[in-house]
Amino acid sequence: MKKEIPYKIYLEESELPTHWYNLRAFMKNKPAPLLNAETLQPMTAEELSEVFCEELVKQELDDTTPYIEIPQEIRDFYKMYRPAPLVRAYCLEKALGTPAHIYYKFEGNNTSGSHKLNSAIAQAYYAKQQGLKGVTTETGAGQWGTALSMACSYFGLDCKVFMVKCSYEQKPFRREVMRTYGANVTPSPSATTDVGRKILTEFPGTGGSLGCAISEAVETATKLDGYRYVLGSVFNQVLLHQSVIGVETKTALDKYGVKPDIIIGCAGGGSNLGGLISPFMGEKLQGKADYQFIAVEPASCPTLTRGKYAYDYCDTGKVCPLAKMYTLGSGFIPSASHAGGLRYHGMTTTLSQLCDDGLMEARSVEQTKVFEAAEAFARVEGILPAPESAHAIRVAIDEALKCKESGEKKTIVFGLTGTGYFDMMSYEKFHDGKMTDYIPSEEELAASLAKLPKV
Amino acid sequence: MKKEIPYKIYLEESELPTHWYNLRAFMKNKPAPLLNAETLQPMTAEELSEVFCEELVKQELDDTTPYIEIPQEIRDFYKMYRPAPLVRAYCLEKALGTPAHIYYKFEGNNTSGSHKLNSAIAQAYYAKQQGLKGVTTETGAGQWGTALSMACSYFGLDCKVFMVKCSYEQKPFRREVMRTYGANVTPSPSATTDVGRKILTEFPGTGGSLGCAISEAVETATKLDGYRYVLGSVFNQVLLHQSVIGVETKTALDKYGVKPDIIIGCAGGGSNLGGLISPFMGEKLQGKADYQFIAVEPASCPTLTRGKYAYDYCDTGKVCPLAKMYTLGSGFIPSASHAGGLRYHGMTTTLSQLCDDGLMEARSVEQTKVFEAAEAFARVEGILPAPESAHAIRVAIDEALKCKESGEKKTIVFGLTGTGYFDMMSYEKFHDGKMTDYIPSEEELAASLAKLPKV
Repeated sequence: MKKEIPYKIYLEESELPTHWYNLRAFMKNKPAPLLNAETLQPMTAEELSEVFCEELVKQELDDTTPYIEIPQEIRDFYKMYRPAPLVRAYCLEKALGTPAHIYYKFEGNNTSGSHKLNSAIAQAYYAKQQGLKGVTTETGAGQWGTALSMACSYFGLDCKVFMVKCSYEQKPFRREVMRTYGANVTPSPSATTDVGRKILTEFPGTGGSLGCAISEAVETATKLDGYRYVLGSVFNQVLLHQSVIGVETKTALDKYGVKPDIIIGCAGGGSNLGGLISPFMGEKLQGKADYQFIAVEPASCPTLTRGKYAYDYCDTGKVCPLAKMYTLGSGFIPSASHAGGLRYHGMTTTLSQLCDDGLMEARSVEQTKVFEAAEAFARVEGILPAPESAHAIRVAIDEALKCKESGEKKTIVFGLTGTGYFDMMSYEKFHDGKMTDYIPSEEELAASLAKLPKV
Repeated sequence: MKKEIPYKIYLEESELPTHWYNLRAFMKNKPAPLLNAETLQPMTAEELSEVFCEELVKQELDDTTPYIEIPQEIRDFYKMYRPAPLVRAYCLEKALGTPAHIYYKFEGNNTSGSHKLNSAIAQAYYAKQQGLKGVTTETGAGQWGTALSMACSYFGLDCKVFMVKCSYEQKPFRREVMRTYGANVTPSPSATTDVGRKILTEFPGTGGSLGCAISEAVETATKLDGYRYVLGSVFNQVLLHQSVIGVETKTALDKYGVKPDIIIGCAGGGSNLGGLISPFMGEKLQGKADYQFIAVEPASCPTLTRGKYAYDYCDTGKVCPLAKMYTLGSGFIPSASHAGGLRYHGMTTTLSQLCDDGLMEARSVEQTKVFEAAEAFARVEGILPAPESAHAIRVAIDEALKCKESGEKKTIVFGLTGTGYFDMMSYEKFHDGKMTDYIPSEEELAASLAKLPKV
């Protein structure tokens, strides 16, 4: 009774998710709580509320409510760029000559160019509801900053973005996109904060780091009246919002009677993958269905495959609480030769716990192989993927080629988180044969892991 | 019996157009034929076939067949990025406080970032059908070159793009997108052609021009065995392919019982606007319905509003045939202060004839006003528009504000041709208050028009 599968499955507006899927509610082994870095006690709602919006703190701590209603205002905004299409990769299948069926959920059809907007709009909404004047955040290359700028512009909130200085100067385009949406973009380190001034005095010529930008954003949020800090990945609340990806994907597949065998996503902080797998993993945890889940990470930043499952700082600057997660150590920075994103030293606690429980596997891939997959994909499927997303493409192609060999007709679903329009400098490196791979040595990782806090 | 209008109307795959709409077939006053620049006689199919693919020549000359079937292979490719959504601009309406209903057809959801892909894939298909090895073309900022690279990659055709040298050097990102799709991108003028060598000798430091790039592309196509030249706008065949925009738009509106009052599009060479209006203008020509059509052009390149309706060269290099069209003279180049596209000195013959017959009106707008509209639109509707597309937004907003004043509840439809991700340098100029307006003087235009060929 299967209907013919179109190239792209678009849900009707009436089929859009009404609730976020709170995966933690279905987990027997809950993700470990955040700890206050000084007292080593679980962070309370009160403590978290000094930095985060109240409703978001509730979501951060809620590991029992299975479905959390999406407020109408957020659903209205989702309607502007969602449903994201679930695409049947007919052309890729043909090019590979595989019997496998390949689908990808494409989150790049919005100006932020990625899935980040799903959580940005939610966080901006709750900030507005709380009567705040604005929010602060950090951004590296600018994907998250762009998404937040769009969301704040929609709700008329002030948006202060601390952008890592070298990106601010070398990647002016995303900065201008943020300015188009009215955001206040400051190169970090800046003279506007204590931590920024301190770093500028110590290292006058520094290009900045994400860790420093986080510290500046948090400091600004806590010092200014009517501001809170918001963030783009890692935290539970972000995974929760990103579950719209998975809920839409599952609804679309169910409509056509398709059950995936393998679900693949790239993993940096883990929010997109966590969102994609949520309802599927929920079924698996309830024994209703089984799926193979694969998290894909760069070989140059191998958090899940070579990191340690332990309490660590979420940020280099150590202003955030401690989280129990797979980590390479909060001081770990991928080699400068690493072109794409997914540079985070840790992993959201939910995915960390699921990996530790053996419910999800992880693979690391080298970047030249990732760009090869990206280019092959672009040429047949049209979409030019972000380097991050291309990690998932790499493994999806590998799995499809395994099916070609074995003759298995598996159904593979992967998350295509975004587009690579602002990553053409990395593509240029690849085209010019100047891209190299880097795998950190055992010694390098051991040295970084030796600095984990004693908890 | 009207259904509630969703934010975005997506057609089902089964509702996608099966035929292009050949507007010329419905015109009583046909667009004037192309003339051989030497003999001043109408170009024959044989003459055109030296430069263009055979089937495309047929389409170029066919002004009687009302509906031309879209080959299945092209429809399959269309399925990869179409239907383009028809968006109800609820948020813009609210922000403007207008009783008008505003819709826009968004063509930017593909890697080329614009509607150009609609014709690129058709031209690549016919080249492949003819057994050619490849095609040549020119590109300025790179939108058309990108679209053609994608199309050629899909059909395994070689694609040689001559890219205006200053863009090649100053805008490396689109160049890298083209390389990702396997295109051969050469900065023009180049030492690979006679015309390129001649110009390099005369003007060693030149940054190139579109006129020169066209000449190099045509020369290469005619000299190489198994190659033809393809082009992204102005010609009838391109308008024909772009009619998918209009057919989809009309199908989507009809589904919800919506009849537009005003249809607005930006006009450079005229292909997107020609495509958008095709089925609506067809109805108007047959007396079945009436609509107001508005072509919007930059005040700095005011072809329809201040040009002359006469035979002129289609290209600066004068290698193409003569076309009867509104023109500013083939030597006209908009002021260097002009930031966006829509720089073409002429206008496709079909739209020129329709304007001359009083069936369509034209307006020119200044660029600072265009960027103001672009930013206002982005902030409420999310999408960051290309400067070209923002010309249509400007007039759509102006018309909606008129409705606010008069209380009229008009339905306004405009074409949002593409995204502005590769135009952030122009946005930066605008944000920094460095953007100026330029309106050519009567004397400047008269001097350019004085050089029209004597036909």
